[in-house]
Amino acid sequence: MEPDLTVFADRIRRLQAEMTRQNVDWLVAGPAADLRYLTGLVGHPSERMSVLLVPRGGGPIYLAPGLEAPQLANRRDLLDVVTWEETQDPATIAADLLGGDSPTVAVDDTLWSVFLLRLQEALPGAAWSEAGALLRPLRMIKDGREIELMREAARRTDDAWLEFISAPIAGLTELQALRRLLDLTYARGLGPNFGSCGSGPNSASPHHSGNDRVIQPGDAVVFDWGGTLEGYNSDITRTVFVGEPPDDFRRAYAAVLAANEAALQVIRPGVPCEALDLTARAVLEDAGYGEYILHRVGHGLGLSIHEEPYLVLGNTLPLAEGMIFSDEPGIYIPGRWGIRIEDAVLCTDTGAERLNEAPRELTVVG
Amino acid sequence: MEPDLTVFADRIRRLQAEMTRQNVDWLVAGPAADLRYLTGLVGHPSERMSVLLVPRGGGPIYLAPGLEAPQLANRRDLLDVVTWEETQDPATIAADLLGGDSPTVAVDDTLWSVFLLRLQEALPGAAWSEAGALLRPLRMIKDGREIELMREAARRTDDAWLEFISAPIAGLTELQALRRLLDLTYARGLGPNFGSCGSGPNSASPHHSGNDRVIQPGDAVVFDWGGTLEGYNSDITRTVFVGEPPDDFRRAYAAVLAANEAALQVIRPGVPCEALDLTARAVLEDAGYGEYILHRVGHGLGLSIHEEPYLVLGNTLPLAEGMIFSDEPGIYIPGRWGIRIEDAVLCTDTGAERLNEAPRELTVVG
Repeated sequence: MEPDLTVFADRIRRLQAEMTRQNVDWLVAGPAADLRYLTGLVGHPSERMSVLLVPRGGGPIYLAPGLEAPQLANRRDLLDVVTWEETQDPATIAADLLGGDSPTVAVDDTLWSVFLLRLQEALPGAAWSEAGALLRPLRMIKDGREIELMREAARRTDDAWLEFISAPIAGLTELQALRRLLDLTYARGLGPNFGSCGSGPNSASPHHSGNDRVIQPGDAVVFDWGGTLEGYNSDITRTVFVGEPPDDFRRAYAAVLAANEAALQVIRPGVPCEALDLTARAVLEDAGYGEYILHRVGHGLGLSIHEEPYLVLGNTLPLAEGMIFSDEPGIYIPGRWGIRIEDAVLCTDTGAERLNEAPRELTVVG
Repeated sequence: MEPDLTVFADRIRRLQAEMTRQNVDWLVAGPAADLRYLTGLVGHPSERMSVLLVPRGGGPIYLAPGLEAPQLANRRDLLDVVTWEETQDPATIAADLLGGDSPTVAVDDTLWSVFLLRLQEALPGAAWSEAGALLRPLRMIKDGREIELMREAARRTDDAWLEFISAPIAGLTELQALRRLLDLTYARGLGPNFGSCGSGPNSASPHHSGNDRVIQPGDAVVFDWGGTLEGYNSDITRTVFVGEPPDDFRRAYAAVLAANEAALQVIRPGVPCEALDLTARAVLEDAGYGEYILHRVGHGLGLSIHEEPYLVLGNTLPLAEGMIFSDEPGIYIPGRWGIRIEDAVLCTDTGAERLNEAPRELTVVG
């Protein structure tokens, strides 16, 4: 079956309009989210240079290693394919394609530096900039199909959680518990993206990913994970307590939940991103937890797990209908525990719609 | 338990000796394999700048977002930690740390371009180069512990394969079959890295990753996958046939197996990398399959799935004891089938040791 390429052709046209507006001659995108957004191609990150080259006007070119050519056959209506063989230098070929006098070239934020350095060497007269500035206005606003996929990815992730918390976790290591949760998530047809589990004191480290610590009664346990549906990510965090939670934990949990809810209430088109961070922060500060805040309240979500818009102090970008981002206040008390409650949220024309509806009230597990 | 940091301190000293030799003032490494090799830290790739800064002389610095600080506490004997808060600009902080007059800065090959562009803007007088040239001589030669981990990762991957081929796969989709194989692999305590399955005509596309095509009698099926043990990758490919293979497939399979074996026989210290490619290629050409070769015979393997040394025409780098790389000749007949047989191989002081020993003879499955 030939894929429907019209959505991609339309996105490339909108990108080119943005390139004209920002006075950029070429976009260079590696095998990552921008490529998938613009072409539907997933790409294959490796030391072999594989880049989409989009001119300000005219048709895009995909420069790829020869062995990837078979996978590009169904994109010929969208782009020209130029392949290089194992003994050729792709940077020279790319430089010839970009050519001209001192082009201005925007580079996909995640392109590996080794490729940028080689392109810079091959095109010493070019001016280089971040492609994020071009892609942000496009990728930030989800269309109907993207929203549908993300709603469904979130629903399946919630469903995995409901099954997960029906069984005890005390006695499992963090990695074993995480494995069980991810298996339940992937069993619902989602692809892998990431997952983390922090128990007891480890839960106080927001980026702790999980280790062989055995989960035990008296632990707070933070699970932050997701899955992908056609490349679109779910991303949710829930914090449970093993056995009866002490009063101070209950109080802190209620404050984080109130912060999550308060940020949600602020959401509507036109509100600056930082307002959500300020609002959640104020709730936590008023409850006496200000010193335990370690991160912004949220980040955009889509083909990347973190993308624009970032809900952080100083970001005055106004929210707009179709933006999807996390609402995830957290507090972290060193050596004791952490609490984070995260949902993916859609900004609608009048307010907010939570994509995650897994229970947010304090969950006690065995 | 405090980790043993002496191995990392030693690697940093050897890196600094290489920096002196190559006249580089600083190394900048993002949250990827170079970082893990030098510090044991896994890192967390994201839009938040998180970089290891190693000077030619003196102690390394890790510049990280504040929320990652708790994870860095057990590395304080190895490096100084500098954190930035959510509203600060880390590129400016990094530039101050690199400072001085026009430093020469080598950048981790996989560092995201957005960070390199910001560093270049903040340090307009600096000269930038590829850190691959510094890390290659170190990472290419595995030490005893690395070899032990990779041998064990390969052994467990082989073991998963043995269980996998004991059950029929006809009627499963490529993604279902792959899922089963990966589950068996991870159940043996390996972490995920990658996996692909191509059946029937899809097997003729070497980077086809798997889709909803149903595997059926008469299909060749190529599985290429692996897992990680403490960050070190296994990487193996096996090609099976569903039902009785036709004679032309048997002939082609025998040629690929002979190419795999011929390349293996060439391996010993001092032999140029390209000799393996030439040898495997000659076997396939002599058997009449020259036009169906799409890729080099192999790549280095370690903390990255692809790393130096690359076994490709034109690479005259001599093999050395302790190198580990893939031996994976393949042929691909468009629209019909592909065959690839891949083992990880260690170059010893006198020859080669295969790390993978899963059966290589033509395997017929139901």
